[in-house]
Amino acid sequence: MEKVFLYNEVVERIAHQIKNGIITPGEKLSSVRKLCEEHNISMNTAKRVFLELEGLSLIESKPKSGYYVTNRPELNLPLSQSSNPSLIATDTEPDEIITQVYSNMGSADLTLFSIGVPSGDLLPFAKLKKEIILATRALKGGGTEYEPLQGNLKLRRMVAARSPAWGGNLDENDIVTTNGGMNALSFCLMALAKPGDTIAVESPCFPGTLELIISLGLKVLELPTHPVTGIDVNALKKVIPTISICLLVPNFNTPMGSCMPDEAKEKVVSLLAASEIPLIEDDIYGDLYFGTNRPKCCKSFDVDGNVLWCSSVSKTLAPGFRVGWIAPGKYKAKLLKLKLIHSISSTSLIQEAVGNFFKSGKYEHHLRSLRKTLYSNYQNYVQAIAEYFPVGTKTSRPQGGLAIWVELPEGTNTLNLYNLAIKHKISIAPGRMFTLQNQFENCMRLNIGLPWTEELKFKLKTLGSLASMVQKAK
Amino acid sequence: MEKVFLYNEVVERIAHQIKNGIITPGEKLSSVRKLCEEHNISMNTAKRVFLELEGLSLIESKPKSGYYVTNRPELNLPLSQSSNPSLIATDTEPDEIITQVYSNMGSADLTLFSIGVPSGDLLPFAKLKKEIILATRALKGGGTEYEPLQGNLKLRRMVAARSPAWGGNLDENDIVTTNGGMNALSFCLMALAKPGDTIAVESPCFPGTLELIISLGLKVLELPTHPVTGIDVNALKKVIPTISICLLVPNFNTPMGSCMPDEAKEKVVSLLAASEIPLIEDDIYGDLYFGTNRPKCCKSFDVDGNVLWCSSVSKTLAPGFRVGWIAPGKYKAKLLKLKLIHSISSTSLIQEAVGNFFKSGKYEHHLRSLRKTLYSNYQNYVQAIAEYFPVGTKTSRPQGGLAIWVELPEGTNTLNLYNLAIKHKISIAPGRMFTLQNQFENCMRLNIGLPWTEELKFKLKTLGSLASMVQKAK
Repeated sequence: MEKVFLYNEVVERIAHQIKNGIITPGEKLSSVRKLCEEHNISMNTAKRVFLELEGLSLIESKPKSGYYVTNRPELNLPLSQSSNPSLIATDTEPDEIITQVYSNMGSADLTLFSIGVPSGDLLPFAKLKKEIILATRALKGGGTEYEPLQGNLKLRRMVAARSPAWGGNLDENDIVTTNGGMNALSFCLMALAKPGDTIAVESPCFPGTLELIISLGLKVLELPTHPVTGIDVNALKKVIPTISICLLVPNFNTPMGSCMPDEAKEKVVSLLAASEIPLIEDDIYGDLYFGTNRPKCCKSFDVDGNVLWCSSVSKTLAPGFRVGWIAPGKYKAKLLKLKLIHSISSTSLIQEAVGNFFKSGKYEHHLRSLRKTLYSNYQNYVQAIAEYFPVGTKTSRPQGGLAIWVELPEGTNTLNLYNLAIKHKISIAPGRMFTLQNQFENCMRLNIGLPWTEELKFKLKTLGSLASMVQKAK
Repeated sequence: MEKVFLYNEVVERIAHQIKNGIITPGEKLSSVRKLCEEHNISMNTAKRVFLELEGLSLIESKPKSGYYVTNRPELNLPLSQSSNPSLIATDTEPDEIITQVYSNMGSADLTLFSIGVPSGDLLPFAKLKKEIILATRALKGGGTEYEPLQGNLKLRRMVAARSPAWGGNLDENDIVTTNGGMNALSFCLMALAKPGDTIAVESPCFPGTLELIISLGLKVLELPTHPVTGIDVNALKKVIPTISICLLVPNFNTPMGSCMPDEAKEKVVSLLAASEIPLIEDDIYGDLYFGTNRPKCCKSFDVDGNVLWCSSVSKTLAPGFRVGWIAPGKYKAKLLKLKLIHSISSTSLIQEAVGNFFKSGKYEHHLRSLRKTLYSNYQNYVQAIAEYFPVGTKTSRPQGGLAIWVELPEGTNTLNLYNLAIKHKISIAPGRMFTLQNQFENCMRLNIGLPWTEELKFKLKTLGSLASMVQKAK
């Protein structure tokens, strides 16, 4: 008997062929009828496959002709380079540019390519408002009273209920809530690190993480990182004797958007567990995948309780709510003690509202639409970059998340570009923000979480011209 | 021309006479007519004076007879002793009993004399619910977006607007909001202390503060403290060369409820400023005064910007909201940097709601009623202690706040009492929780923020009997 293919298997198979160039841009796909025969599926299933691929912007329909592979411009731009930092730990103060760029955050007159959160226009705030009102009714004392130390039960249950989607197997007792994602990382480091300890991170790395580590009197060790597959596992192996903690963003980290393959995740988890080095896994972008499937987490492979899985809704739902959480594994007692000492408890009301939003199914619905927007934005950005930026510009190939990493031709200093762009009301995040070493001078991160408009396209065009000017002035 | 007295001047004058025994319990006061003549006030003013004094439970009316000074039982119980700790800094781990006592927090079947927050029954949660709903409408994006780093503007304005009441002169730019009061203290210490630094505190001291200091790798120096007037300023002077930061709760600290006189506050501020030692002033109980006037803060005397004034609504309005703030003086830039690194921002929605609650006048209304309840509770507690506790029991004379400090006859071990009381579904806070030294073995703190009922009275009676048992068993 012939194999009957499932709808999502067929989607994945074709997506794989497109992404790997087996079917090339502009090429016509099989007809609906042909697809049915090839995969032994019904007409309805075949139609659904095409719709899904179209939704992923991998194919487009031409009236009365059929489906064609989208002309994906990112395939024409070269891939940005792997990083190659020195493997020596440092406690250098982060560059001042970080503070300068962050201070632009609230400026309504700037185009904020520099920030790392989705624009408010992409967030479902009317629906969240209703959940807040419901939460004031549901909670004892309207949320005015202290909640249990581990955090709001509804939220913990729902975070646990969502864990099978990434290969997790959590229950509510495994989770401790926090005031947002940075608070989660801060608590993990404070609970586990001793002064002078070295923390291994990706390079380039989120500037807030670098600042957090240094401000706690710890050292940063930057690991070589590939824009598609994440950290170099062999490099990690080599530095294991010198580090105390590893802090990674395995899924769609900022700025590169890389996603570690499952085998690499598994290997890192077992390597670190063998040396009793805790892995803090920051998974705040994990739900923002561009493909058909949610990637697994390192926590999925954690048999020793050595992984502290952290996440939040700051990158997906409501940055201002400050709702995050940790599944701290065997470090739970330490985390709880630290949470009690430094914050007594978290804000139950907001957590209850988010928990209900998860429970209602509205979160999954919102994520589907947000992912589509981000993926479509990413394609528009790449197209604009290909069109307007200096020849030789390279970009990352994010498989999810909120950022694209742009590598301008060598010698193009993005600190100069920053200063020039600000005069044109454009804020970018220069590459120097993402390292404590002398790297990424010609790189920058752009936020793809802004609504795509003609004006935004024009701003990218302007940025491209300015980049050419900076390049020539060198 | 004769001096025309103001209503509150007369209230204060009579209150002073009662508190200092110039008019004694049971004594009859002047008639309304006599009072008018004595102070050159109108009949209406005189009546208001009596009503206010009655509201403060200083006098009571007997029908067809007049007003009499209340028979205040606390005047019959001896005052608890000043503490006399060693002036050597220590980094001893706090006693395990702290964790044990805190873990009782959520237990509905226990009478929680051990906690340090007002019971939910005393909080205006229906009104707060409305403010939350209004805040979701007022804020851009319903509070889903990041707020400015300093915190919600409405709340900062209102905290500033309330500052003249305690002799402050703040504006919104002077204030940085936090996730509750402990978060404020944690941020101040993290921003200012280096590993190994010594922090001077009151003794006895809030256990959470002791744990916070030790968990940050710092040392605690406990200062001799008088139950009525607070720390011994001469002792502070002596240890100044050995300390890096001073952290005080000058108004109605827990557990003793002392209130530093203005002169002492002023002296401490100038002493510390002269040595460039920052003063972290925790003023979370300042609004809970039993007298007629809000006491001043150390911040009122701060000319150098050397005082970091911290407060919150956790002890007065909504512990679960996690809304606090700091007026960090000249340390503002350090505080802001730390807040950004560790939490990005705070939860704007809840802060907006609290800001509006302040603005509407509902907060002052609520505080008036809460203060009356707490003062009346305090009197009921003292009466019950006088009646049911072992002969020789001493108590503090809190002038505000949420706690009474009970000193049982020497040799009565309150750790034993704790274990015994738990079996009777009563939780107390043993004296050992409030120090890192070998002190307060026969002391305990009782929470006066529980609604007064016959059952509560019975629980105090039980506690008194158990204390006698522990005393005899010694």
